Formats: sequence, structure tokens, C-alpha cells
Amino acid sequence: MSFEPDVLQGFVQRYLDTVGGSSADEVAALYAEDATLEDPVGGGEVHIGRQAIAGFYKNLEGADVKAELLSFRAGGHEAAFLFAITVAGAMRIEPIEVMTFNGDGQITSMKAYWGPQNITQL
Amino acid sequence: MSFEPDVLQGFVQRYLDTVGGSSADEVAALYAEDATLEDPVGGGEVHIGRQAIAGFYKNLEGADVKAELLSFRAGGHEAAFLFAITVAGAMRIEPIEVMTFNGDGQITSMKAYWGPQNITQL
Repeated sequence: MSFEPDVLQGFVQRYLDTVGGSSADEVAALYAEDATLEDPVGGGEVHIGRQAIAGFYKNLEGADVKAELLSFRAGGHEAAFLFAITVAGAMRIEPIEVMTFNGDGQITSMKAYWGPQNITQL
Repeated sequence: MSFEPDVLQGFVQRYLDTVGGSSADEVAALYAEDATLEDPVGGGEVHIGRQAIAGFYKNLEGADVKAELLSFRAGGHEAAFLFAITVAGAMRIEPIEVMTFNGDGQITSMKAYWGPQNITQL
């Protein structure tokens, strides 16, 4: 299974647009039922399943979040990308994320690589 | 198992320095005996084991290769990074790579995300 790079970039852009301004359930709906989410990688916690993933995004709900794609790379049914997320105009984080997708374009796994050194106070 | 971000960045910088100017066997020696390499992701081929990995890097041997780290993110025993590789001063490729490491600092897996759209003719 493989997607053209612009299709994968469309999936990622939809994800970033949804993170900025939608409910946790709307973000979780972009994930497959049995998807996994690790954010940050190495943080010791992997969220498994759409319900757990919705719980993770509850942390962002109601905050003024903007997400901007900075660099995008495609590969088969996977994508790796550098982006910036700005929270309440006060904090900017620049993670690299890796996502895999199923044939329906749902996210099957997400891993976010970032740490305190990738946070800027604005 | 987890490494400090600057230790992981040191592993990655050593890898990039070795890719630029060393033999295929020297690059392969940075990998664990049973490591895997997928470059590019989605290309349909995963190289398994240090011998197969050395075979992959033979393609670069003898070429004038420079590798420059552009963005680095750490997570546990993993790293994700954007870098530029310049071949013979004629072609520049900017992949995002994801690497995992074992406790000895050897690379246990490498995945490189890039495609034709990430190549610039110089």
C-alpha cells in the first residue's frame, strides 16, 4: 500500500488543521480504531486506541492552538514532518512527527519527537 | 533505556561524519549486527543485518559526500533529524531520518524519508 506524496501531505495538513481549532474527538476521529500514539517519544507512555487518543488531545482542547507545517517527507504509506505548534501565542514547540496511515487514510500510528530544548517561550 | 539528547545528537553527528568520507564498512560498523535499514521508506526494500547494510553504503563509497545536520529531535533511545547530503557538489538531498539505538550506542534501525521532490540539482 502506498500513497502519492501530495496525498500524504494532504492527510498531514488535515491533521494539523484539525489540531488547531477542533475538539479532541474530532482529532481522534482521524485515527484508526486501534491506532497508537507516542508523544513525546521516550516519555514512557503509548496511548492505544481511539478513546485513549481522544483523552490525550483533551489536553489541547479549548487552548488557542495553531499548527504550521515546516518540512514534509513522504514514504509509501508513511510521513515524517517538522512542524511548529503555537499555544495561546505564548509557547512554540517544533516537533518532528512520524505517522503511518491505513488504506482509508486513517492514522495508524503517530510518534512525536521533541523535548524541552524544542520549546520557545514567546 | 534512554539517552540524553546531546548523547543521541552525538551518535547522529558521528554517523553523518562517517557517511561523508569513510568506507561502507566503517559506516556499517556503526550499526548493530542485526540492524535494519530502509532508505527510502516505501521503496520496497529493507536491508537486514550489517553485511546487507554495508552493501547499501557501497553505493556512496568513493563519491564526494558531505552530510550536514539541519534539525535534530531526541526521544528516549531514538532520534529524528532533518539533514542535507551533497553528492559530488552536484546534487543535494534533504531527508528526514529516524534512528533507534541500543545500549551500546549502535544503530538498531534506520528509516530515511525522502523522494525525488527532495532532490535539488546544484
